[in-house]
Amino acid sequence: MSVIDELTGELSRLPGIGSKTALRLVYHLMKGSPDDARRLSRAIRDLADRIRRCARCGNFSEDELCVVCSNPRRDAATLCVVEEAYEVGAIERTGRFGGLYHVLGGRLSPLDGVGPDELNVRSLLDRVRDAPDRVAEVILATNSSVEGEATAVYLEERIRPLGPRVTRLARGIPVGSDLEYLDGTTLGEALTGRREMS
Amino acid sequence: MSVIDELTGELSRLPGIGSKTALRLVYHLMKGSPDDARRLSRAIRDLADRIRRCARCGNFSEDELCVVCSNPRRDAATLCVVEEAYEVGAIERTGRFGGLYHVLGGRLSPLDGVGPDELNVRSLLDRVRDAPDRVAEVILATNSSVEGEATAVYLEERIRPLGPRVTRLARGIPVGSDLEYLDGTTLGEALTGRREMS
Repeated sequence: MSVIDELTGELSRLPGIGSKTALRLVYHLMKGSPDDARRLSRAIRDLADRIRRCARCGNFSEDELCVVCSNPRRDAATLCVVEEAYEVGAIERTGRFGGLYHVLGGRLSPLDGVGPDELNVRSLLDRVRDAPDRVAEVILATNSSVEGEATAVYLEERIRPLGPRVTRLARGIPVGSDLEYLDGTTLGEALTGRREMS
Repeated sequence: MSVIDELTGELSRLPGIGSKTALRLVYHLMKGSPDDARRLSRAIRDLADRIRRCARCGNFSEDELCVVCSNPRRDAATLCVVEEAYEVGAIERTGRFGGLYHVLGGRLSPLDGVGPDELNVRSLLDRVRDAPDRVAEVILATNSSVEGEATAVYLEERIRPLGPRVTRLARGIPVGSDLEYLDGTTLGEALTGRREMS
């Protein structure tokens, strides 16, 4: 297989990139300087070599603990639970949350074979139970989809007996949409207006 | 700068990829297996290391001569002149051309400082003049944009005195569009119906 076909195939595997777009990118790289292409290649390899999961919260990190968990000024008494690591970035960009995160790595979805054991649920409960300082509040920031809501309800039943307040991001998030695509203002409003779970 | 920012920046430089899409791709790569990311990195590096310009026609190639120029069954008496190497692929996919190519590397555009010396015009004229077997026809397959037409007119004036027929792809190509996006049938029709330059 030619190097052109090889790279076109690899690029087509990326989300949102079809075979035509992939070929266009390949031609762009061939037309540009080889050094530009090598810099892109190196940046991808560095990512693969250096990114791992934060040992505490499951966020992506270059070190044992991610930049949030290793920051002593973050409020360890408040945990914000998200489905995916990219949602940490979305909440951070609002500038309205000073606590720590916990990344589930997905949402409950029994039809797809995703139960609590497939998500970082045990480590979340362990964190709430064993925290040196008491966890006062757990914000369940799963998406407002059916699975996200079901995940929140499940987690609330497990966490409330351990002591903390359990809250949910305020309505204001369009139902069925993904956190990732919300503008910062909407997401910030939802964070400020979070409500006690019934 | 973090490896995430680094790669997001590199990806944003690609055509059609903004910073949001770039970040989404980075998260996709982090979520997937590091081996998948390394394979993509390697495919890009291989492209940078192994692709060069064909010494005869200017097409992209892994060898001294490209797959078209090194194929003895191609008809060396017919040359098809295109602006960019990716247009070779578009014409090849019609399956209706058996000659050789010449890649100009752009089109005449005096306002952008692109004159004949900035394109592979001299090597084209040398090929027509010095070909061991006579070049019987030169098809000017530059785009049907204003610059593409001007480039064709310029080349016709230089090539006709050297002997070959000079033809142009048939009307049938939507005016102002790029070859790259045409469907193969339209492009094949235009190739079959090419006309003598006035």
